[in-house]
Amino acid sequence: MKAIVAHGAKDLRIETREIPKPGPGEVLIRMARGGICGSDLHYYNHGGFGTVRLKEPMILGHEVSGTVQALGPDVTGLAAGDLVAVSPSRPCYNCTYCLDGAHNHCLNMRFYGSAMPFPHIQGAFCEYIVADARQCAVATGLTAGEAAMAEPLSVVLHAARRAGDLMGKKVLITGCGPIGQLAVLVARAGGAARIVATDMTGFTLDMAKAVGADIVHNIATDPNALEAYAADKGYFDLLFECSGVAAALAGAVPVMRPGGVIMQLGLGGDMSLPVQAMTAKELELRGSFRFHAEFFTAVQMMKNKRLDVTPLITQTLPLDEAIAAFDLASDRTKAIKAQIAFVS
Amino acid sequence: MKAIVAHGAKDLRIETREIPKPGPGEVLIRMARGGICGSDLHYYNHGGFGTVRLKEPMILGHEVSGTVQALGPDVTGLAAGDLVAVSPSRPCYNCTYCLDGAHNHCLNMRFYGSAMPFPHIQGAFCEYIVADARQCAVATGLTAGEAAMAEPLSVVLHAARRAGDLMGKKVLITGCGPIGQLAVLVARAGGAARIVATDMTGFTLDMAKAVGADIVHNIATDPNALEAYAADKGYFDLLFECSGVAAALAGAVPVMRPGGVIMQLGLGGDMSLPVQAMTAKELELRGSFRFHAEFFTAVQMMKNKRLDVTPLITQTLPLDEAIAAFDLASDRTKAIKAQIAFVS
Amino acid sequence: MKAIVAHGAKDLRIETREIPKPGPGEVLIRMARGGICGSDLHYYNHGGFGTVRLKEPMILGHEVSGTVQALGPDVTGLAAGDLVAVSPSRPCYNCTYCLDGAHNHCLNMRFYGSAMPFPHIQGAFCEYIVADARQCAVATGLTAGEAAMAEPLSVVLHAARRAGDLMGKKVLITGCGPIGQLAVLVARAGGAARIVATDMTGFTLDMAKAVGADIVHNIATDPNALEAYAADKGYFDLLFECSGVAAALAGAVPVMRPGGVIMQLGLGGDMSLPVQAMTAKELELRGSFRFHAEFFTAVQMMKNKRLDVTPLITQTLPLDEAIAAFDLASDRTKAIKAQIAFVS
Amino acid sequence: MKAIVAHGAKDLRIETREIPKPGPGEVLIRMARGGICGSDLHYYNHGGFGTVRLKEPMILGHEVSGTVQALGPDVTGLAAGDLVAVSPSRPCYNCTYCLDGAHNHCLNMRFYGSAMPFPHIQGAFCEYIVADARQCAVATGLTAGEAAMAEPLSVVLHAARRAGDLMGKKVLITGCGPIGQLAVLVARAGGAARIVATDMTGFTLDMAKAVGADIVHNIATDPNALEAYAADKGYFDLLFECSGVAAALAGAVPVMRPGGVIMQLGLGGDMSLPVQAMTAKELELRGSFRFHAEFFTAVQMMKNKRLDVTPLITQTLPLDEAIAAFDLASDRTKAIKAQIAFVS
Repeated sequence: MKAIVAHGAKDLRIETREIPKPGPGEVLIRMARGGICGSDLHYYNHGGFGTVRLKEPMILGHEVSGTVQALGPDVTGLAAGDLVAVSPSRPCYNCTYCLDGAHNHCLNMRFYGSAMPFPHIQGAFCEYIVADARQCAVATGLTAGEAAMAEPLSVVLHAARRAGDLMGKKVLITGCGPIGQLAVLVARAGGAARIVATDMTGFTLDMAKAVGADIVHNIATDPNALEAYAADKGYFDLLFECSGVAAALAGAVPVMRPGGVIMQLGLGGDMSLPVQAMTAKELELRGSFRFHAEFFTAVQMMKNKRLDVTPLITQTLPLDEAIAAFDLASDRTKAIKAQIAFVS
Repeated sequence: MKAIVAHGAKDLRIETREIPKPGPGEVLIRMARGGICGSDLHYYNHGGFGTVRLKEPMILGHEVSGTVQALGPDVTGLAAGDLVAVSPSRPCYNCTYCLDGAHNHCLNMRFYGSAMPFPHIQGAFCEYIVADARQCAVATGLTAGEAAMAEPLSVVLHAARRAGDLMGKKVLITGCGPIGQLAVLVARAGGAARIVATDMTGFTLDMAKAVGADIVHNIATDPNALEAYAADKGYFDLLFECSGVAAALAGAVPVMRPGGVIMQLGLGGDMSLPVQAMTAKELELRGSFRFHAEFFTAVQMMKNKRLDVTPLITQTLPLDEAIAAFDLASDRTKAIKAQIAFVS
Repeated sequence: MKAIVAHGAKDLRIETREIPKPGPGEVLIRMARGGICGSDLHYYNHGGFGTVRLKEPMILGHEVSGTVQALGPDVTGLAAGDLVAVSPSRPCYNCTYCLDGAHNHCLNMRFYGSAMPFPHIQGAFCEYIVADARQCAVATGLTAGEAAMAEPLSVVLHAARRAGDLMGKKVLITGCGPIGQLAVLVARAGGAARIVATDMTGFTLDMAKAVGADIVHNIATDPNALEAYAADKGYFDLLFECSGVAAALAGAVPVMRPGGVIMQLGLGGDMSLPVQAMTAKELELRGSFRFHAEFFTAVQMMKNKRLDVTPLITQTLPLDEAIAAFDLASDRTKAIKAQIAFVS
Repeated sequence: MKAIVAHGAKDLRIETREIPKPGPGEVLIRMARGGICGSDLHYYNHGGFGTVRLKEPMILGHEVSGTVQALGPDVTGLAAGDLVAVSPSRPCYNCTYCLDGAHNHCLNMRFYGSAMPFPHIQGAFCEYIVADARQCAVATGLTAGEAAMAEPLSVVLHAARRAGDLMGKKVLITGCGPIGQLAVLVARAGGAARIVATDMTGFTLDMAKAVGADIVHNIATDPNALEAYAADKGYFDLLFECSGVAAALAGAVPVMRPGGVIMQLGLGGDMSLPVQAMTAKELELRGSFRFHAEFFTAVQMMKNKRLDVTPLITQTLPLDEAIAAFDLASDRTKAIKAQIAFVS
């Protein structure tokens, strides 16, 4: 079978691997769609990010869906032919954090397509994978493309759960890449009363408007746009910071209401922050990292039509055009979420 | 001007009162619509409820909207002609609870149409009222009927805020009167993944389905309907108990997940409850009573199209047919929310 | 070896059992002390409680400590000779609740000395037990009697965690049996600003005073004692209801502040409760049931001298006087916690 | 009467002011003790901090206690001769934040001794002040020195309330000035299971140990001391960051457990922070700023002997030696809290 393998910066190859066999509790999945994530792009464009670097060839990909092809022994609840969204979260279920229910902090996590431990954890961009049955959420009624959006949607649902009640809140979203767009969708689905989004390109802001933002501001052309929200110590109850840029976070501080919450989703290394102003306003800066149980909630919410991720899938390219797909996904003026079709 | 005055059980009269004059910080409002609430019906049908009894004539009504007619001195933010939703919540802003921001527990609350203190607090079902400007939420873009729904919607938003995050939750709603219907709308607006409603009449259940319940069960014809949710210690994360009937609450205990939350909105006197089972499942029974700041959120959410209360306004009758309106509102097979039109 | 076996109401026998052998991950423990709990007394005095009835002989006991005698294969972190507190909580670590970190709601819980499933789960009142190493908290520096208090202390720490921050709170404790006394200790350790306890006997109230209650009231001799706290809608932020008596809970409703929390620890079957008054005050009635991870916190807090449970151990009797110990433990005018000494 | 007036950096003068007269709801207070706070020291040593600069002479001081000398009209609950702790928090009780109960964010706050608005808000270091009766907490049974500690204790109680439940938690405190020391006391009073404190001087660390820290580390002499807590992704549940130094906060990130909370109390301008690592661990950085209602809790907790601030009052100097007192208070090898005695 074919797999998409990163060997280093700008060195992506389609290689051949053997089709694996499912063991007890496992299923063989014929891959259908795979979404390209920001971390995949970092490996592709730069060979890694921060201290996380490629040290050996690694199959990329962790936003995937496919069709159950064969069942290993002792699998219940799944049948051949089922469309499933496959969670890349594979905790050990046995360490102190797993036992606390904090699986995203598992000491032995084997998240698809991660160069952090060595040997690297291979990803899921291949024509077949074997997955644990408990990674699989039946996605009947969804398209394969929607099912492959369960992963980034889970990231945002996890952040939203950590943010608490959204109902009636005034929400700012900085950065309108795929995560920012999903934050707009989730804020809307959660009953936020007012949703304002910022970014630097018209393309992403038009999309944010289309999927539910009440107001958008292009910070590139209107750098002081947020000042209008600064009266009376600020307007927003909640910020989803999805850009990973210190200036975006710092620029939001004056427009957050005292006691407001900043959910940090963007990953951007060290940041110089106005901590004194944040302290005086009693802001809360909360990191949010991956997800676990939210994966099944994400699929259920899409199936129950609580939100529609379809508009965010801006391109779908066949496996053989993987490199073109990665280039396209890197262009924030053309793509929100580019997906690879492993079957047509 | 005319006012709707309760003198005792089944003794409702349309009487004449003098038009009041607005003082500093106050506005004169030409009433437009008034929704009939369950407590109005208790005064009308039974002369009160529990230990709360009519001891003198009382103008009913606390779900009202109207048009600003005249401004007293020192009023800002309102103009003659504005459609406003008028909050019946009039706390003292000075007692220990008001200073804590818990205005709904004000020691000196003067909530419209309440027989609890004596002399009673007169209600708002009259052609003109004078209100404090801070009771008024500008409702431009809403119908007067929608604006008059801000009050019961606030009751449910307050309960939802106390319930916490709804996103992805499985929600049960017992009792589909106006509050139960609004709980369906709010659960839907808050991103609940699964909404199940129960009641005893097809009329109310059809409405619940129409406004967003995924599944409805008629407990009158299918008394064991909830048993299907009892596996693995229960299914629902959250119950909005809107019936005030002990059997409804007790019947939900086996289908609540351990750690689940029961928001008690229905008022029903003493109840015999399975406290041992509730304790073993670590359920949380939380009372919810009125609201305060949520009134403005309610208007904002309707204006921003986060939810649509229009289908719940099943009848609108002119002031002169007030008695017919009260009779109709008492019939749960025909009416969800009956409103009185003070202007046509 | 000897074991304390309940055959039915008032039929407690000291019988002989074989000494078990530790398997992988397990340890053999020479029992030192065993505290008699209210549920042990229910089995002894009444053959069960509610629908939970003895249907076969069952070894009682779940509050135990002992000395590690031998290690099975693959045990780390424990050594022969270690004094350990042994947690009776044995969840499956695999069901939906365990995976959420809610081990106390495990679908397959095997809690020592429980007649709820059949065959019953045998208890720990025997001279030797084999326990999983992860049930054992090293208790170096504590007496064996203190170590055997880790279990009931965990029950109260779990309730306190569910109650939230205690610091500066005004706390009422109704019922001064062992759990109520520990609630006094925990409220004091957690920084409660004011602790008031009620019960029906001078003996228990004197003890409550001695371990940290600021004020105690004997409801038997002064039934209206709480009325003094009813002004301005109530005084207490938090109630630990440890009596399981509806009248105690209902009697506290008028003296709870609006928004106050009632932690229900006492188990008392169905209760008729003033739900309307509780709703109007927005009280929260939260069940609390057993514990899991708190067991290790309990041992750590005792080792670090955060609280002293010693005064609560009012009697220690040798194994051969088990029946006398059970009779004594049943007498609330003489005993708080009676323990059995399996070694002298 | 005499007052302590800052005119600029190192320009502190004892000047004469007229004794004020109490109006309705006010009391005249004969000042007893005044504690010197870090912000007083910033005005004294540097003429301000950050963008907050002295622009006119300002009486310093906001940690004060005294004796009620005379009552204005309409004062209840206070009597001449009462020792009172006087809260410097004077919100407007009328703005949007006051109405929410968030008085510390009042848009019109008049906190004693603040150069932030102009004209500055004069402080309380004078022989007599007139205060609103609701600023005064009766402190009978406390020393005047203890009563003057109510203010900094309130700062820490507010932070602890924002931090949530302390019971059984592992707490790190970075920076052992007066606020850090009080954080030790409060963590101990709140039942923290393990308290570790760091600073750069033996004097402050010895005090931290004396008032309740289990372990202290001198980061000046042992810069890698915290590394021992880094295993398994970290040890501490909660950090009270009381130094305002970016290196202290950043250095704690590796030893915080995933999901841990950092309460930021120290004020230190912009900081360069490892936001990516904080995000991956889902840490929460929460600012904490001043207090309001906690002032009365602080006095009550001292009166009820929940904690003892006495050891922290390291020096008390007469009013005439104010400059010496300010110099002493600036020396972290000799003083924790230096107070000025306005009466002997």
